[in-house]
Parts: sequence; C-alpha cells; structure tokens
Amino acid sequence: MLKVGIAGARGYTGEELIKLLIKHPNVRLTYLAATLENAIPISDVFPRLKGLIDLKIENFDAAKAADKCDLIFLALPHTVSMEVVPKFAKKNKKIVDLSADYRLKNFSVYKEWYHKAHKDKANLKKFVYGLPELYREKIRHAKFIANPGCYPTAAILGIVPALVSGLADKDSIIIDAKSGVSGAGKKVELGYIYPEVNENFKGYKFNVHQHSPEINQELSKVSLSKVNVIFCPHLLPVNRGIYETIYIKLKKALDVNKILGIYQRFYRQEPFVRVRGLGRLPELKDVVGTNFCDIGLVYDAAAKQLIVVSAIDNLVKGASGQAVQNMNIMCGFDEKAALL
Amino acid sequence: MLKVGIAGARGYTGEELIKLLIKHPNVRLTYLAATLENAIPISDVFPRLKGLIDLKIENFDAAKAADKCDLIFLALPHTVSMEVVPKFAKKNKKIVDLSADYRLKNFSVYKEWYHKAHKDKANLKKFVYGLPELYREKIRHAKFIANPGCYPTAAILGIVPALVSGLADKDSIIIDAKSGVSGAGKKVELGYIYPEVNENFKGYKFNVHQHSPEINQELSKVSLSKVNVIFCPHLLPVNRGIYETIYIKLKKALDVNKILGIYQRFYRQEPFVRVRGLGRLPELKDVVGTNFCDIGLVYDAAAKQLIVVSAIDNLVKGASGQAVQNMNIMCGFDEKAALL
Amino acid sequence: MLKVGIAGARGYTGEELIKLLIKHPNVRLTYLAATLENAIPISDVFPRLKGLIDLKIENFDAAKAADKCDLIFLALPHTVSMEVVPKFAKKNKKIVDLSADYRLKNFSVYKEWYHKAHKDKANLKKFVYGLPELYREKIRHAKFIANPGCYPTAAILGIVPALVSGLADKDSIIIDAKSGVSGAGKKVELGYIYPEVNENFKGYKFNVHQHSPEINQELSKVSLSKVNVIFCPHLLPVNRGIYETIYIKLKKALDVNKILGIYQRFYRQEPFVRVRGLGRLPELKDVVGTNFCDIGLVYDAAAKQLIVVSAIDNLVKGASGQAVQNMNIMCGFDEKAALL
Amino acid sequence: MLKVGIAGARGYTGEELIKLLIKHPNVRLTYLAATLENAIPISDVFPRLKGLIDLKIENFDAAKAADKCDLIFLALPHTVSMEVVPKFAKKNKKIVDLSADYRLKNFSVYKEWYHKAHKDKANLKKFVYGLPELYREKIRHAKFIANPGCYPTAAILGIVPALVSGLADKDSIIIDAKSGVSGAGKKVELGYIYPEVNENFKGYKFNVHQHSPEINQELSKVSLSKVNVIFCPHLLPVNRGIYETIYIKLKKALDVNKILGIYQRFYRQEPFVRVRGLGRLPELKDVVGTNFCDIGLVYDAAAKQLIVVSAIDNLVKGASGQAVQNMNIMCGFDEKAALL
Repeated sequence: MLKVGIAGARGYTGEELIKLLIKHPNVRLTYLAATLENAIPISDVFPRLKGLIDLKIENFDAAKAADKCDLIFLALPHTVSMEVVPKFAKKNKKIVDLSADYRLKNFSVYKEWYHKAHKDKANLKKFVYGLPELYREKIRHAKFIANPGCYPTAAILGIVPALVSGLADKDSIIIDAKSGVSGAGKKVELGYIYPEVNENFKGYKFNVHQHSPEINQELSKVSLSKVNVIFCPHLLPVNRGIYETIYIKLKKALDVNKILGIYQRFYRQEPFVRVRGLGRLPELKDVVGTNFCDIGLVYDAAAKQLIVVSAIDNLVKGASGQAVQNMNIMCGFDEKAALL
Repeated sequence: MLKVGIAGARGYTGEELIKLLIKHPNVRLTYLAATLENAIPISDVFPRLKGLIDLKIENFDAAKAADKCDLIFLALPHTVSMEVVPKFAKKNKKIVDLSADYRLKNFSVYKEWYHKAHKDKANLKKFVYGLPELYREKIRHAKFIANPGCYPTAAILGIVPALVSGLADKDSIIIDAKSGVSGAGKKVELGYIYPEVNENFKGYKFNVHQHSPEINQELSKVSLSKVNVIFCPHLLPVNRGIYETIYIKLKKALDVNKILGIYQRFYRQEPFVRVRGLGRLPELKDVVGTNFCDIGLVYDAAAKQLIVVSAIDNLVKGASGQAVQNMNIMCGFDEKAALL
Repeated sequence: MLKVGIAGARGYTGEELIKLLIKHPNVRLTYLAATLENAIPISDVFPRLKGLIDLKIENFDAAKAADKCDLIFLALPHTVSMEVVPKFAKKNKKIVDLSADYRLKNFSVYKEWYHKAHKDKANLKKFVYGLPELYREKIRHAKFIANPGCYPTAAILGIVPALVSGLADKDSIIIDAKSGVSGAGKKVELGYIYPEVNENFKGYKFNVHQHSPEINQELSKVSLSKVNVIFCPHLLPVNRGIYETIYIKLKKALDVNKILGIYQRFYRQEPFVRVRGLGRLPELKDVVGTNFCDIGLVYDAAAKQLIVVSAIDNLVKGASGQAVQNMNIMCGFDEKAALL
Repeated sequence: MLKVGIAGARGYTGEELIKLLIKHPNVRLTYLAATLENAIPISDVFPRLKGLIDLKIENFDAAKAADKCDLIFLALPHTVSMEVVPKFAKKNKKIVDLSADYRLKNFSVYKEWYHKAHKDKANLKKFVYGLPELYREKIRHAKFIANPGCYPTAAILGIVPALVSGLADKDSIIIDAKSGVSGAGKKVELGYIYPEVNENFKGYKFNVHQHSPEINQELSKVSLSKVNVIFCPHLLPVNRGIYETIYIKLKKALDVNKILGIYQRFYRQEPFVRVRGLGRLPELKDVVGTNFCDIGLVYDAAAKQLIVVSAIDNLVKGASGQAVQNMNIMCGFDEKAALL
C-alpha cells in the first residue's frame, strides 16, 4: 500500500482527493494537513466523511509529511507550492502538484501571470505536465507531476485533435468557457457569496485569465508553432463543472464525418475521453462527479467553422481525479483505480 | 417632496430601499452613505441602477445627513444604529431604523441577545415597533420607527389572529422558519459562499436566534401574557423570501371555516396581508418582490392542530418595503405608494 | 385610457405583460384570454397578482377581444398568431405580436424554420419589426408590430454598431448565447423539469435555432449585404436572462477607445441601452427585471478581435417589456412608461 | 455473481440503482427494462453511463426478466408493482420493490391513500418492510422486500429512539419535512418545470400525503399503540435530499445528555446512521450522494421540547441505496457493499 498525504486538505480539491483516495485499493491515506492551529478530526471539517476515515488534519509540516508519505498531493494555492516542493524533492518523494506553479515552463511567463518570480527553477524542468492523453509515457517515468488547470484540461482535449491533424487554422481559436463556482476554490469574497452568484451569470478576465498562457503553451507545443487563443471564461451558477464551447476555423472544407473520425481515432484508447456522435452535444450533468471529458462536435460547412464542446468536472478531471489518474500511471496502478 | 437619505446604502436592504424610493411620488433621495473612503456614483456599486439615479454614495457623516434629509433610513448593522440615532434625534429628524437596536423594549434582554449594553436608553421608548397591521395609529404619530425583523414580521402576522381570538394554546407555538440567503445581509463568510449554500439546506440557531425575543415580546404584548415560542430557522437556497410553517394547538376543536373567518376578518382592511382560501398554501414565489404577506391555513380537527403558513419577501415586507410603508403612514402619504 | 387585451395571458410573457400593464398610467387592461374551459380570476392562475388586478381570464374569442380592446398583445405560440391576426386587422385594431409569425419577411424562410406555410401573407408586410433602437420612426406610424425574439434583441443590439460603422468583418460573427429557462416559455417537457436543468448546462440547436434567420435578416438589412452568423445557444440554470458573448473580427486594428466611442454614440439617446466603460462586463443580474440591454466591450488588438457582451432580461427587453415599449411609441405615450 | 435486473430503469431511482450496482462486487446487472418500444443502449438514456455499462434497456417482459435474473428491483410507479410481483413470486425470484405497494399492511388503508384496491393480497404478507435498522433479522430471511418510502425512512429513524425509550409523548409528534425535487420522480408536470421550482419553496399535501399512513403504521408498531403524526412536506429547490425537522414533546423533563445517549446507543452498531454531538445540526450536503442518515438533536428543557433533525439522500438511503442495503442483507453480502 502506497502511503499518501495531502497538503491543503481543507479546500474543495483536498476534499475531493480524500473522497477518491479512501476508495483506492492500492493506497493508504496517512497524512492530511492545512494551515490550522490544532489538529482536529477531518470529519469535523467535512461531516460527510464521518465513519469513512479516521484521520486528523494537522498543521502542515513538510518534514513530518515526508516522513509519513511516499507520495504527496499538493492542493495548495499558487505561489505556495513552490515553497514546499524543494523539501519533498530533497527527500526523493513523489509529488503531484495541483497548483499552477510547475505548469508554465517559461519563468518570465510565470512571473507575468502570477505576479511573483519563480522560486524553484531547479525543480521546474523535472515536472511533467500531467495530461495523460498527451504525456502518458512521460508521466509513467516521472516523479513530479504538474497537474493541469481545469480550464486548460477541457480546452486542450477539445482542441488538440483538430490541431495535430492539421485541420485547424491555429490563429482562429476562440474558447468560450463556463465554470461552476468551485472552480474558484473555497474563496470567501463578496463576488462568491450566494446572492451574488445565484440567478446570475457573468464573463470575467476575458483574455487576461491566468490559464491563457497554460493553454497557449500546450497548444503551441503540439502544433510546433505559436498559438494564441481567445479565451473568455464565465461564472456559471452551479457547484461543479466546466463547459467550453470552442470555435475553430478549418483550413479547408471537409466532410463532417471525417472530422468526427479524427477525434474518435485520437481518443480511441483513452479511458476518460468520450467523443459523442454527430449532433449529440454533451451536457454538464453527464460528467459532473466523474473523471470523464465528454466531447461533442458541430460543423458548419459553409463557414468551415468547427464547434467543439468539451465538458469536465472541474474538481475531478479538472483537478483531483486527474491527480489520482496521474498517480495511478506514475505508480503502475490500474489507471482507472478509484476513478470509475 | 420629502428629502430622504439612507445610511448603509450598500447592503441588500439599502439597495432595495433605493429601488423603491426612486419610484416614490412624494420623495426625493438626497443622501446615500456607507463606510467608504471616497464618494462614488451609486451606480458604480449597483450597475443595475445606472440611468435611474444620479446620486453619489459617500462616507457616512451624521451632521451632513441631518442637513440634507427630513427623514433617514438606517440600514445599519445591529449595535451601530444606537450610536447614530441620538445625533438625528437631537436635530428632530424622522428615523426609520431597520436594525434591531430599538425593537426590544427591555434593556437586559437586548444585552442578552446582542451581547452589548444598549447605549441609547433615552430614545428607546420613543420608538414605535413598525408593524402597521398592529400599530398603524401609533406609527401615524411617531417620529421614530423600529422596523421589525424579517422572521418576526412573518411570524407575528401568522400567529396574532389565533392568539388574540383566544383560540391558541399560547404554550404550543412552534415556528419552523426557512429564509433565503439575503436574510443574512451581504455577509462575506465561508458559510455563505455559493458552493456551501447551493444544493444544501440546514437548520441553525434552533431556539437561540436573536429574533426569538422579538417574536416573544410582541406575542406576549398582544396576548397579555408571557409567550415563549419554539423558533427553528433554516437556510434556504434561494436569494429571497421567508416561509414559516407555524404549528399552533387550539384550546378546543373548532370548525375550520370559523378559523379561516377569524383570519380573514382580522386582515380584511389590510393592503398587504392576503389570507388564502382553505387548502391553498402560499408559495414563496407569490410574494418575492412584493410587500405582501401571504397566509394559508390547514387544520387537523382530530389533533386540534392549526398549521399556519406565512410567507414574505425578507427584503421587502421583511425590511425595506415595510420601512417605506412605515414612512408612508408616518408622513401621511398613500400607504401603498411605491409598494405596488 | 387605452383599452388593452392579452391573448395568451397564462404564459410567462403574458404574466410579465400583466405586471407591467397594471402599473401603466395610460392603459386599462380590459381583456385576458387563453385556451381554457371556464373563465377564472387571473389571480387564481397567478396568486401573486391577488389584490392587484380583478380581471378574469377567459377562453380566447377574437370577436370579443376586438370588441373590448383598442390594442391587443398576442403572447401566443408561433404559427398560432397568424391564425388570429387577420381577425384583428379587419377590425382595425392595433396589434403587438410577440410570436415569430410576422418577423421573417421571406415566406420560404419562415416555412423552412417554422415548418408551416405562412397563412397571412397579406398582413405580413404591414408589420414593423419592433426594435425601437433601429426602427423607432416606423414603429411610431405602425399599427402592427412584430416584437423581436429574445436572442435576436440582444444579438442585434450588440452587433449593429460594429456593423454599420464598417468596422466588422461581417463573415466573422460568432454568437455564444446563454438563456435562462423561461426563454423556452412554460414548456412542460422532460428536458425542462427541475432536476434536468438544475446543476446542469448544455448547448442546443447550434446553428439550427429558429432565431438564426431572424438575426441574419436584420443584420443583413443594416449592413446591406448578406450576413450569416454562427449562433450557438445554451441553456442556463437561471429563471431569466440572456447573456450573449459575441466574437467579431475587425477589418483593421483600431484603438479600443474609438470602438467604445462608436458604441456609445450609437446608443447615446437610447433610454434602454447602457454601454459600459472599458473592461466592465455586464452581469446578468444587472438587467434581470429591467428593460435594459447592457453592453460591454473587450478588445484584443493583436488578433483584431472584438468581444461584445450583450445582456437582457428575456421576458422584459426580450419580450414583454419591449412589447410595452413598442406600444408606448406607437400610441404616443412616454416611451419609458411602466418600464422604469 | 448474483444476476440482477431492474424494472423501471429509466427513472431517477433506476439510474441510481444502476450507478450503485455496476460497482457492486457480488452482482452482475443482466436485465434493464422500462416501458419503451425498442431496446436501446442504456447509455443512450443516460450518457453519463457511457463506457461504464454495455447493457440495453428493453421493453419490460416479466417472463424474460425472471429468466435472466435471480433478483429483481422494481422501480415502478405505485399500483404497477402489484401487477408484476405475482409473476416473479411464482418463479421463486427475490424481489426488492421500491414502490409503495407492499408497505401498508392494511388493505383498506392502501385503498384509501392510493385510490385503488390492492390486487395481490396473497403476497402482501410475505413482504418485509425493508428498514434494516428495525428489521435486519427479518430481512435476512426474507425473499420479498418492501423498500421504505423516502420521507418515512428519515422520519422513522429520527423518531423511533424517543418513542421506544418511552420518552416521547406519542401524540405530540410534528414532522416538518423538506424534500428535493427528485423525490417526486421524473414527473413531467407544470409544477416541476424549472422556473416553477427554482427560487421558490412551498408546502404541499399537509396531513394528506400518502407517506403519512406509512409513518403512522411503523411508529404504531414499535410503540405498541396508535400513533398519528402531523406530517407537513415541503418542496425544496435542490435536486436531492430530505431534511426533516421533527418536534416531539417529552413526557417529563430530562437532561439533554441522557437523550443524546439514548439515540447514540440505539444506533451504535448501525453502519448508516450517524448521530451528531449536541448542537451540531446536520446539513443536507453531508448526506447527499451517501447512504447515511444523519441525526441531530436540540432540546428545550423549559418546554420539554425535543427537536430532532433527520437528513438523508432521498435517492440513496431513501430509495436505491437502501434497496441495495436490503439486497446485501438478504443475500448475505457485506451490508455496506457498493454503498461506501
């Protein structure tokens, strides 16, 4: 049994990790931590876990964590992970980092978008971007995983087949993204209290969201040329789920069945990507609570306009589920363990 | 035109007051204040008011407020109103206080429930409890109004006819109350962020909610004997509205039509209380956005159990609408002005 | 006082019309109808109207309606209005038709999208498309108004300034639209029951929604050339509101303030269109319950990509409010009467 | 592997059964049926199941079902189950019936509340009321289970300890119940479409809900005397969950810790009932998606008023989860299999 810990166990991704890991056949949760004064039973924080897990959550201590765990999930805020990673790296522990700190490979891009200089350049290059559908082999041999962002996961999975097949006009990509509120984490701010979100809907950070450079980095990598998407996120009045409607101009007109075939072949072996038949758009509820990414396609031949819908649960495939999937691959477990 | 101001114009009750007052034929809004550094257009705070009102909201200054207004609405937190009232009282201004500071007539009860000694005992007795259905004549001659709490408004209107008619066993009253989230004000706390409230429901402060003594005070007054209700509030995942299901044992069995008749006669002249026919329970959406209190009755003859449903909009009849109704009565306007 | 009736008074747009019209200073509601067996008080259908209006709703009878009304609002399903209009036209009554029946000027386009041949070609050309911001003068002299669809209202108002100014590449327009559930009317179908919509989100009818030809017709008219937008509607888990994120490529790079200036000048005199300052995107809650259309702009200079957000309440500016606005103009009332 | 089928697999309880059973280590799903013309993949009905189960759903045929299954779950409407049960009983198959048809032991009570004479009196007495916390031993030896209603499950579990301990005044019990919308099943009626439920709340069927006699039957049985509760259900704008606030007068004043102790002892061995510490009320979200019943207690000593909160997920402990729990007991599996 792999001994596993979670730093940042009190947030939404931390809670989701606990729920997944207590069902995992190859794993034992041995350490839960957050910033708090006294250790308390985790079921005092999350009463729904009462009777399911007996562990305490304690104030985070990297040395103790390293002692108690073979692998640690970092469900910490951005700019905090990079303070902690060197301590685990030194002790040769496996890490799955759910923050953004090790996703962007370019220091200056990181600084531009997260407003802080990167503090752990030494380890940065050792981290593998943990999108199994693109980097399964690298993940298998990695020790450190930079778990992808929620918006980028849905976006990249939705766009890559059109891009690598050479269909897409790479300069035409528009991502109209909608996210449930837990995507913001457990943020206690006026903009997130119930009466401000309920019966409301709004766009925010159009083209200035910090997930833009992550999407661009990955799309540029697969297409071997600079990609700059238009990325417009919106806040959806639901607890969970990301729904992205992606507009891509094709370079030339194509039969719609050919396009569908390209997507289906691309994901044929993937356990967690489901490509729908023509004209069958995903609904958010089809993926909420699952590790699936559901993809649907609509094509307007006259305009050579491909429209891709990509839907995930932001806390599962967009965070904790994908983190477990990465652990499974990295540790040689069944990739689907605890995820079906 | 009466010159009117609002202290605490940035909260939910403040916003609702503005919406009502800009439509009022006898009133001019001349002053909006809150605790803030620089004056800004109120439409920067509430973009929905853009084009409807041109006033700025400024840092609260009692002297300036008194200068600019004939009447001031205090939409301030509890324990803050009593700091401010003496300044207006001195200048002979009319006041409608939406806080709890002048509702409880007993100093020690106030201290017990609001955890602070009352600081303005001198003015306390000059305040009339602003429930028009019980105290219209007093309100007409008042200068200072203690606007009732939201839960108490629905509770008192639902219970009083059964109590003053002598039907009710006064020791049997149970109020199972459910409130929308704006009832808590614009509170930025973990318990009120969207993912904690949405798809959730919970009871809180059973028998220890600060509105208990207010309900008991008023019911004791009308029944000329000590009443102690069981009061169990719950948080409902909606923006607005209070729905109270009230259980009252009758002293003796009665024909249900007689009970209905008592309620209908009690409210026959009331512009804002609507008693439903038998078996027709109110729904929250019937009153949301209105100043109405809708009342429905169900009776179990075998158990001599009367069940009263009382529904209001917590921000209208439960706060700002009732405040305007009180102003209307106090100032000799049409009681329904701006409220239909 | 103008005598006014509503055919189809039991739906959401009918209810909204009643709410607006009972506050209207120049109008008396004299007739309410739907398809039903026996006349019943309208407050039995809508208990929230109890005490506000005393009229009955009765089974629709065109002759009776014509007798009792100077102007009739048709809040009927598509393909039903065209059965009824000739009867009112003959009697020289004013009509505001909220259905789609008289919006599309081309018979064959109507048949293609509504699957029925048009039955009243004679009157079709007498109907003015009731978008006051474009056709105020024509509306002033009209007797028959085809009230615009909800999606088209938000789309056209968001796109027209960019189009008529010559900025927009007319072949690049993508409308990612999100609508609250009342946009579907009071439809009793599996897809609209609460557990299917709540905590869900989905796209539907991408490029095959019946509002596409309406948008294209109007944009083509103002731009004097064929426009074909990409139109992708989504179902939003809120009761009311439409939020459209519109992507428009500009023909050449431009300073963002110039673009903003063009929009602001275009709507300077408009009582119900509010253009936001740069970087201030509308939220749905700013317009819900109002007749406003709020517009926000974001511009990506490198990509020459203009992003326009256009938000309305689908039942007000998108239906009943605009219908009243049209009546106001047509009848010489204050255009804002009952709408602020 | 036990071969298991579901009749009525297209509703909410059917879907929940599928989700639970595909994870069950001792079970193989071999038959899914509903009323439909042609067999289709179950993942066409529930796209979220794509890739998780490969079965078709077909038109219900009792003979075929009996052929293919050792045990069948009947997720059928009331009054339909009793048509089907005799066919399975004859073939000696195990049955878990989720309808109300075999819960009420008195024929005339059944007829009074379900408006139809019972058609299978022969088998009625062979059915065990499947509440494991009360009847585990009987369930172990049963072949036919009448799975309890959702409201009754929460009510009985909340009330029984106070009743059997002799604390409760049995004539004082009031149940103020609130249910999420899936409690009504997949009902396509005006009252259940999204805009009618969202931002709304309402009581319904006060004292005339068909779950009243079921609650009374069970409470009377355990208390060995006639119990008649006051039962007032309300519709909560959430997808799932039942929250009951239960008011019970105690016969004599008691120390609150004693009361708590009685509840804790009563459920000490129970895997799916969690009694909270004093003053810690359950929230709906603690149980949604689980098979737990969470119970919290508040006590007002002066009024000798006990207030019990009992919360479950109506589709899990209130239906499909409890059905699986019953199967587990009846078939000698781990009682918690597929339920944690």
